[in-house]
Amino acid sequence: MATYADRSLREIRRDLHAHPEVGWTEYRTSALVAETLDELGYTLHLGADALEVEARMGVPDDDDLAAARERAAEAGAPAEYLDRFEATTGLVAERSFGPGPVVGVRVDMDALPVTESSEADHRPAREGFASRHPGEMHACGHDGHTAIGLGIARAFAGGDAEMKAETEAEPEDEEPFDGTLRLFFQPAEEGLRGGLAMSRTDLIEVDRFLALHLGLGRETGTVVAGLDRPYASTKVQARFEGRSAHAGNEPEAGRNALQAAAAAVQGLYGLPRDSRGVTRINVGEVHSPNAQNVVADATGLRYEVRSDDGDAVEALLAGAERVLSGAARMHGVDVATSTVGEAATFEADDAMVEAVADAARAADGVDRVIERDRLTASEDAAHLIRRVQDAGGTATYVGIGASNAAGHHMPRFDVEEAALDVAVDVVTRTVRGLGS
Amino acid sequence: MATYADRSLREIRRDLHAHPEVGWTEYRTSALVAETLDELGYTLHLGADALEVEARMGVPDDDDLAAARERAAEAGAPAEYLDRFEATTGLVAERSFGPGPVVGVRVDMDALPVTESSEADHRPAREGFASRHPGEMHACGHDGHTAIGLGIARAFAGGDAEMKAETEAEPEDEEPFDGTLRLFFQPAEEGLRGGLAMSRTDLIEVDRFLALHLGLGRETGTVVAGLDRPYASTKVQARFEGRSAHAGNEPEAGRNALQAAAAAVQGLYGLPRDSRGVTRINVGEVHSPNAQNVVADATGLRYEVRSDDGDAVEALLAGAERVLSGAARMHGVDVATSTVGEAATFEADDAMVEAVADAARAADGVDRVIERDRLTASEDAAHLIRRVQDAGGTATYVGIGASNAAGHHMPRFDVEEAALDVAVDVVTRTVRGLGS
Amino acid sequence: MATYADRSLREIRRDLHAHPEVGWTEYRTSALVAETLDELGYTLHLGADALEVEARMGVPDDDDLAAARERAAEAGAPAEYLDRFEATTGLVAERSFGPGPVVGVRVDMDALPVTESSEADHRPAREGFASRHPGEMHACGHDGHTAIGLGIARAFAGGDAEMKAETEAEPEDEEPFDGTLRLFFQPAEEGLRGGLAMSRTDLIEVDRFLALHLGLGRETGTVVAGLDRPYASTKVQARFEGRSAHAGNEPEAGRNALQAAAAAVQGLYGLPRDSRGVTRINVGEVHSPNAQNVVADATGLRYEVRSDDGDAVEALLAGAERVLSGAARMHGVDVATSTVGEAATFEADDAMVEAVADAARAADGVDRVIERDRLTASEDAAHLIRRVQDAGGTATYVGIGASNAAGHHMPRFDVEEAALDVAVDVVTRTVRGLGS
Amino acid sequence: MATYADRSLREIRRDLHAHPEVGWTEYRTSALVAETLDELGYTLHLGADALEVEARMGVPDDDDLAAARERAAEAGAPAEYLDRFEATTGLVAERSFGPGPVVGVRVDMDALPVTESSEADHRPAREGFASRHPGEMHACGHDGHTAIGLGIARAFAGGDAEMKAETEAEPEDEEPFDGTLRLFFQPAEEGLRGGLAMSRTDLIEVDRFLALHLGLGRETGTVVAGLDRPYASTKVQARFEGRSAHAGNEPEAGRNALQAAAAAVQGLYGLPRDSRGVTRINVGEVHSPNAQNVVADATGLRYEVRSDDGDAVEALLAGAERVLSGAARMHGVDVATSTVGEAATFEADDAMVEAVADAARAADGVDRVIERDRLTASEDAAHLIRRVQDAGGTATYVGIGASNAAGHHMPRFDVEEAALDVAVDVVTRTVRGLGS
Repeated sequence: MATYADRSLREIRRDLHAHPEVGWTEYRTSALVAETLDELGYTLHLGADALEVEARMGVPDDDDLAAARERAAEAGAPAEYLDRFEATTGLVAERSFGPGPVVGVRVDMDALPVTESSEADHRPAREGFASRHPGEMHACGHDGHTAIGLGIARAFAGGDAEMKAETEAEPEDEEPFDGTLRLFFQPAEEGLRGGLAMSRTDLIEVDRFLALHLGLGRETGTVVAGLDRPYASTKVQARFEGRSAHAGNEPEAGRNALQAAAAAVQGLYGLPRDSRGVTRINVGEVHSPNAQNVVADATGLRYEVRSDDGDAVEALLAGAERVLSGAARMHGVDVATSTVGEAATFEADDAMVEAVADAARAADGVDRVIERDRLTASEDAAHLIRRVQDAGGTATYVGIGASNAAGHHMPRFDVEEAALDVAVDVVTRTVRGLGS
Repeated sequence: MATYADRSLREIRRDLHAHPEVGWTEYRTSALVAETLDELGYTLHLGADALEVEARMGVPDDDDLAAARERAAEAGAPAEYLDRFEATTGLVAERSFGPGPVVGVRVDMDALPVTESSEADHRPAREGFASRHPGEMHACGHDGHTAIGLGIARAFAGGDAEMKAETEAEPEDEEPFDGTLRLFFQPAEEGLRGGLAMSRTDLIEVDRFLALHLGLGRETGTVVAGLDRPYASTKVQARFEGRSAHAGNEPEAGRNALQAAAAAVQGLYGLPRDSRGVTRINVGEVHSPNAQNVVADATGLRYEVRSDDGDAVEALLAGAERVLSGAARMHGVDVATSTVGEAATFEADDAMVEAVADAARAADGVDRVIERDRLTASEDAAHLIRRVQDAGGTATYVGIGASNAAGHHMPRFDVEEAALDVAVDVVTRTVRGLGS
Repeated sequence: MATYADRSLREIRRDLHAHPEVGWTEYRTSALVAETLDELGYTLHLGADALEVEARMGVPDDDDLAAARERAAEAGAPAEYLDRFEATTGLVAERSFGPGPVVGVRVDMDALPVTESSEADHRPAREGFASRHPGEMHACGHDGHTAIGLGIARAFAGGDAEMKAETEAEPEDEEPFDGTLRLFFQPAEEGLRGGLAMSRTDLIEVDRFLALHLGLGRETGTVVAGLDRPYASTKVQARFEGRSAHAGNEPEAGRNALQAAAAAVQGLYGLPRDSRGVTRINVGEVHSPNAQNVVADATGLRYEVRSDDGDAVEALLAGAERVLSGAARMHGVDVATSTVGEAATFEADDAMVEAVADAARAADGVDRVIERDRLTASEDAAHLIRRVQDAGGTATYVGIGASNAAGHHMPRFDVEEAALDVAVDVVTRTVRGLGS
Repeated sequence: MATYADRSLREIRRDLHAHPEVGWTEYRTSALVAETLDELGYTLHLGADALEVEARMGVPDDDDLAAARERAAEAGAPAEYLDRFEATTGLVAERSFGPGPVVGVRVDMDALPVTESSEADHRPAREGFASRHPGEMHACGHDGHTAIGLGIARAFAGGDAEMKAETEAEPEDEEPFDGTLRLFFQPAEEGLRGGLAMSRTDLIEVDRFLALHLGLGRETGTVVAGLDRPYASTKVQARFEGRSAHAGNEPEAGRNALQAAAAAVQGLYGLPRDSRGVTRINVGEVHSPNAQNVVADATGLRYEVRSDDGDAVEALLAGAERVLSGAARMHGVDVATSTVGEAATFEADDAMVEAVADAARAADGVDRVIERDRLTASEDAAHLIRRVQDAGGTATYVGIGASNAAGHHMPRFDVEEAALDVAVDVVTRTVRGLGS
């Protein structure tokens, strides 16, 4: 197999689409991206050098990670690079072109736990690049995001004529970029699990920053320069541990984890509404596997809270912790919780929004530019954006329209691939505009 | 009014019936009993000398106690004695007849918060001795118990011919009693509130002990020499305290005591059954007075647990405490609990059962003697009985049949007064048999 | 006592303040108002002629109503008029001045179940017009509203020079009003209990309509011409009825109303949030009087729901009904509910807002006019406003600033009485402007 | 492989032990048993002829059944017989020896969903006959029961000398049996799923009946002639079905099956205790697989109730149905329930208890005979026993001691195989005694 450096964005995206890897198992993706960026002359920060390993959330267990690494090796991940992602997937690449500003661009790489449609009118199935892994699918366009990241890298790598694909935008007449381009390839965006870890190294100290997303309900040719004000959201996993007993012979000997969980479910839904903002709470993935004649010794559940107000999120989280510990106390059991996903809300900076809007108006294939809109989903790029802003930088989150037949996260999701070139062109023009 | 010393048991019982006093307000009853026993030559231990004041449970508030004292004074309680019950109602009287054993007999004096029937076919109403206090009634026969206690005292007072009523049993041919008779007139048996306090002084150090009860579903003429194995029972009052807030404008500022109470109610009823014995739990007297547009800042409730197994009662009580503190924690509120009633289970001693059975077989008016049966209600004489047994004494609980039309605690409850004399005769013969 | 027709607004307000009457017991108030308006030449619609008796909500029981009538008679309510409020309190008065538009003005008359402060620095206490009825107080300014209604009536009654108080505004140079003035004196606004009934007669068919409120956090001299978009709110009373049983002896024979209520409380607080608007739900006034050893046979509770979105209110109410009936079903008990208060949301019409704003700018004592603001409380004038609007009329809700030291519904609430004249002047000018 | 007819009970038991089949998948077992009994000259009633197919409970889905059949075929189930269990597993065999009474004997054949221990000191592992199917194990001795059933069949088959194993008891000096022997090989005893179906054909119309069980905590050599009064028990599966919705974007559009299930769990544990007998209730196997950001559209749970009093079981079941339907109603979802297991209580008949006790006293290897004891587990032979008794027959349930190191249902359970011969001897002697 030729490396990605020689292939068109469409080919790269389709290869990634066929090999989806869910959060924290993006071994093949990371290795191929690293190999390509190395060829393109970028300085690499791989795995534990790209993110704070301890800040990762919702990491699968070791067996699952090992199986995923093995699968990646079998599916063509270059061993030389694969070995460098032992601690974690994820990477950052940078290349300096002069003394100008440091500009960060973040894309994400993970797939979803969805089984892709095999119906004939689903293009990936018809054209042979559907997921080869039942239960995993690029159903949110992150395959495209990764390809876009490589396209941007290539656009700035210059000179290397043979690397340029036929489809690549080439803004010949632009002034050259005189700053440093830093590309973040983030793992585990789904479930809001990877952004926090990636925001915890010095690499995030950039002057300008943007993240992007394909689709989001908009047609190819539309660009939203500033999507912001998403719900802050936190996802928590809880496990009640009690003591089993035969429910007929000695019920008093048990400590009933299921009763505690049931009390917790009612308490969580009963958390108060908040005058400071919209609040949401929901519970799922409840499982108490005990047989009906045995007092439950372990019951697990997950919940998430959301709000457009940071204080309200904090109040809900504190309230939820009280509910869980109180429910455990009620029934004499223990409870352990861990945060398995988290994203804040954020606001895009005007300067970056204008920069992107200007670039988009000049870009090929763009027929509609929306300056600002509400981002109606949670997004863990929020951690990176807020870290940049806290340090005095400016940031935005860009929506790249990409027509598709089915909604995000659905088995028939797909993206119109022309949007890949649009995205590369918009971002490339934006970066040049920021640094010349 | 002549003192009780000169009146028949029937007259005494009817006077008490007309002036019912609920638990810890038996001021008139205590004062009249004290006056009578003083006249009969008994040594008196009154109020704080008869019980441990701090161990009383479920005591009404000071205003209610003051009002009850005032009412007692107006209704003929002799002032000289009334003044000696300032700290608490209740008394113990004793008289020694020789070096023989100390024999204790306990009767109770309190009424119930029930309004007596005024229907013409209800004898107390028809004959003019129904309760003069709406909302209070001797609906469990304690008026009769008090009269019986006085009858026993009189039977042993001897010599004082003029004190003996025409109806009194006179076991002429019995050998004289050569021990000490100690009579316990207990307050606040209803709700299991007074027995513990009365068991906490040295007066309970007796060699032989019996308590008795009229009725309990048996006809006049039947005597049960050993009623035992009642449910142990504990009654608890709880109060959740949170923080009020306007439920429309700032719901997040509240700490909802009502939600905590609702969670507690569900948790209490969900306490596990127990393989060691029968268990019961129930909740009542729940009150959350907050308006529906204000987050509840205070909600009260009461509950009781029962079991025929002591360990199971302990397990239920511990479980209930966990439920309450956990429910409070769930909703960020505080909870305070206090025990407002308590009774243990107990077993009657064979020696005392036989002594009573022998006496009953010889007594006037007894046509059926049952040796042992289950006591199907909770009874706080348990505290006294177990204290006696723990110190090496023996005890029993005696059922004195008394035909009545309506069940205990009902507005039409009454007792056949012939049973009063039966009781005095059975107990008097028992005591003589123990001490000669 | 001279009739109100001869007294200043301040005197009237103070007399009303001293004789507060909670909702549906405004007998003295109604009778005095009727007497005064009769003297001023208005046509009267009294009691059952002024509102639909069956549509009243949250009416006290007959004993309470009878006691209130008796109290009113003793406190100077003119018997001739008092007799005409047998079916219900509340009245409408009208007077026609020409063929012009029918203009409706609504004031409310009821007090709150609050005990007024007796502290010396509370003016009503200091100056001797504090509430004579413990537990009842004009703590929301409806005494002032009633006085304002009479002031408006008097302003248009004309000719009768002797009736005009010294403080009354006299817009001498205005054109005369050529329409019909219809004044609504509504009972039972607190708890949202009377507005619906008053909106159910033909009298509400007016062309222009306004309601008003003193205070609401604004200083004397400020007028808000259009307060609107209050939360819609519905208040519901529920009673669970089960079957009592002795909790120790036969727990299985009970049907536990308290368990049903506890499940309902949890279910109510767990009703889903709504993307269509702000939602609120709260529960209070929970009472389960059963003793802790008796299975609860009856438990009552109240709840209220609110939202700024009508569909969301409907969804909450439907959800709450499901919760209650389901909770009853869970525990084998019955449940009955009744709506005890209800108000919709509404929007003020631009034409009326402008008319009031223009009048306010010209009125004496007004130094600040706010055109529109959010009404942050629920208000059952909503029923009348929406009925007017549905029939093609226009309406607004006017805020009359009135400095006061303590918040509405508090024991130290008071209003600066200068605001009474401001209100009469603003409304009088508005009406003249509408009908000339 | 030689047929079971030629093999010792130990060999048969070990072959069965190595090939455990959980309830309703006993294809290999049924086919081998059928083949053997056919060879022994018994008349066969196979599959749908042996039980009422529609009355089976807790049947696995078709895929699981098909896989189990295929596995049975691969593991040596004779095809000729395997084909006759298409509708269901289970069989009845009979043989008549004269005009005497019809005597029924029931054994069960199913394994448990337990993974057997592979530790060297676990005899089946050490000696090579441990379960070949991970997740399935004969951990309750039904392999032994099946072997015993065949041993009894062989003992009465007579004449066929070559079929008798060396270990078989041979009561030479007994009178010959002159009645009809009917052997019930029941599937799916675990979970109480098969007994009801097997009690629903005319085959159960027998004069005398016994079922038996190995182990139950007693040593080899002990026989209990009458084990009875087990808890009645019913196991129910419930599924709440609601409507999913995105919990962040449109929570009000959901119908939350998980909230309903949580309410149900609390309601089930809160069902009242019962004065008529011991009651038990427990919930397990709760699963709500929805992601935490999606309103749950389906949640499943199982529960079981038990009591030693039939009326109390009925009350609990009725109460549980109310709880489930009420919880569903509370949250606007549907609920469907199905009974997946059921057993009644029963009492052994004196005549049968005596017959077994007499036989046991005469049997080889029996050193202790207990006449009667409480059966402390639920047992669905109850359906057959009660059906026999309702038709005028007599029955008992026999305990055959079998020393074993680990408790029933544990991964290290085993039985001392000498008990197999004891069982055959006791039953054979009992049957002969009944029919001669």
